[in-house]
Amino acid sequence: MRALVYNDELRYLTDYPVPRPKHDEALIRVTHAGICNTDIEITKGYMGFKGILGHEFVGVVEKCADKSMLGKRVVGEINMGCGKCPSCRNQMQTHCSDRSVLGILNKDGAFAEYVTLPVRNLHTIPHPISDEEAVFIEPLAAAYEIMDQVSISSSDKVCVLGDGKLGILVAQVIAVSGINLTAIGRHREKLSILDELGINTGLSLDLKERDFDMVIDCTGSPSGIRTALQIVKPRGRIILKTTIASRSRIDINQFVINEISLIGSRCGPFSPAIKAISAGQVDLGPLISCVYPIEEGLKAFQHAASKRALKVILKIH
Amino acid sequence: MRALVYNDELRYLTDYPVPRPKHDEALIRVTHAGICNTDIEITKGYMGFKGILGHEFVGVVEKCADKSMLGKRVVGEINMGCGKCPSCRNQMQTHCSDRSVLGILNKDGAFAEYVTLPVRNLHTIPHPISDEEAVFIEPLAAAYEIMDQVSISSSDKVCVLGDGKLGILVAQVIAVSGINLTAIGRHREKLSILDELGINTGLSLDLKERDFDMVIDCTGSPSGIRTALQIVKPRGRIILKTTIASRSRIDINQFVINEISLIGSRCGPFSPAIKAISAGQVDLGPLISCVYPIEEGLKAFQHAASKRALKVILKIH
Repeated sequence: MRALVYNDELRYLTDYPVPRPKHDEALIRVTHAGICNTDIEITKGYMGFKGILGHEFVGVVEKCADKSMLGKRVVGEINMGCGKCPSCRNQMQTHCSDRSVLGILNKDGAFAEYVTLPVRNLHTIPHPISDEEAVFIEPLAAAYEIMDQVSISSSDKVCVLGDGKLGILVAQVIAVSGINLTAIGRHREKLSILDELGINTGLSLDLKERDFDMVIDCTGSPSGIRTALQIVKPRGRIILKTTIASRSRIDINQFVINEISLIGSRCGPFSPAIKAISAGQVDLGPLISCVYPIEEGLKAFQHAASKRALKVILKIH
Repeated sequence: MRALVYNDELRYLTDYPVPRPKHDEALIRVTHAGICNTDIEITKGYMGFKGILGHEFVGVVEKCADKSMLGKRVVGEINMGCGKCPSCRNQMQTHCSDRSVLGILNKDGAFAEYVTLPVRNLHTIPHPISDEEAVFIEPLAAAYEIMDQVSISSSDKVCVLGDGKLGILVAQVIAVSGINLTAIGRHREKLSILDELGINTGLSLDLKERDFDMVIDCTGSPSGIRTALQIVKPRGRIILKTTIASRSRIDINQFVINEISLIGSRCGPFSPAIKAISAGQVDLGPLISCVYPIEEGLKAFQHAASKRALKVILKIH
């Protein structure tokens, strides 16, 4: 089958074997998949992953032991736990130490004609959601993870740092809750998407010191946490969404002196993300920079890695 | 007066001017003072402080507008806020951006015959507490800060990392609450102080992976946070007490991937510390390595900086 495979370099192959689903898995014909910043970081060495990239996808179930799933349009949660360890037994499959993660850890991803996933990972997509919108469910779920992790009070001043794909999704999720929010970025044209939605925005240059009770770092850059430490109030909270290949030198004294809390945040719940898209609570159209056929996958990756790009989508079937 | 002064190098001076108390301050004749790891870090460049070092002290009030305080034996909280800013108005004087901190930031410290502090910072010491014990009130308060910041459930497995002065104090404070605790260090002879108190201890070498719901880093070493990240469970918490002059390269991805929370923790409440010492809930005697007269201050610093040392106390009057 056709696939985008990373093995020290990213290549488009046409003869990659179609995966065979295990007894609890479905075989899914991938229709669309989104390029995430994590995919780009993997091509710089993050996670040391080798194989088919891609973890944001939508597709149609072609084979499955559960016949009721055949022909269903689905998206999939990307973590597969062992099902037996304390993490898995405590509803924390995403933190199973023996997990595989679609297109990130020990499991071929979705930049291919076919992908397999356990049936329990799948969510059927209601019809009002288009394929291109469905590609955003996985990153939007990661935005909702924040709401599961922390409570934000009505008096809190919140800053979303970073005007990339994830930053714009997070800002929209936070804004739905009526929270006092400012989205800060470096690109006027990206921030204008949020301006249109009535969300306060500002340029990084204009940041005042220590103005925020909570800063959510969605920059995908080593500078994000450093900026967050400069603008968060004493005893404030930094939510960290950034994962990057390179290690960063951080002044950890700032956490102690200002008694800052840092909360790492990764994958999140799919259901609120699906509901929010169905209800039109998030505006995804302006986030799509381009749709490429998988044959032009390498070009799509180049586009996705450029500073001006937002979501680049691969059309596969 | 006699004083230990840091100005690119640490010196013992005999002709330092006696400080003049401001209208809201008391002049305190210092009897004993303790050398803290922070003092040693300052001599490596931490905080860029110049002046008399020392912030753990006990003394007797000699001059004060409030006559009822004269002759009282006191310890003092070390942060002085402006009294007007939002932090100060919200009971967060320790986080006033315009604060001075005794012997650490813009305020001469207590390794001297006399020190001044605002009367509102002072706590009278009840008689059962000896001078040498009173020197521990400030660092013990820093241990109690953790209990103000986080709730620890009875099912949580907690690790105190570091068997130095602060680690041993923190372990004792945590143990009083009946929490499932293991203190981990590198020095059998230091850990034996906690063994004597019936607290579980272990050597760093014996650490299993990801075994703790909470890890409290009291190592005072850049390696502390790295070890903490290795042994804390997914979605666990790291309390950071370590402040060090050097910046450290940290794999911030670990926070995101394992959704770890890091909570910086600094100065704490004096009242529970004074009560705990009065009630004999903490055992301080074994923590005292040596008492030096201030004239031997440089030797005392050398001793305090050695790996085997615990608390080194200066006798000043």
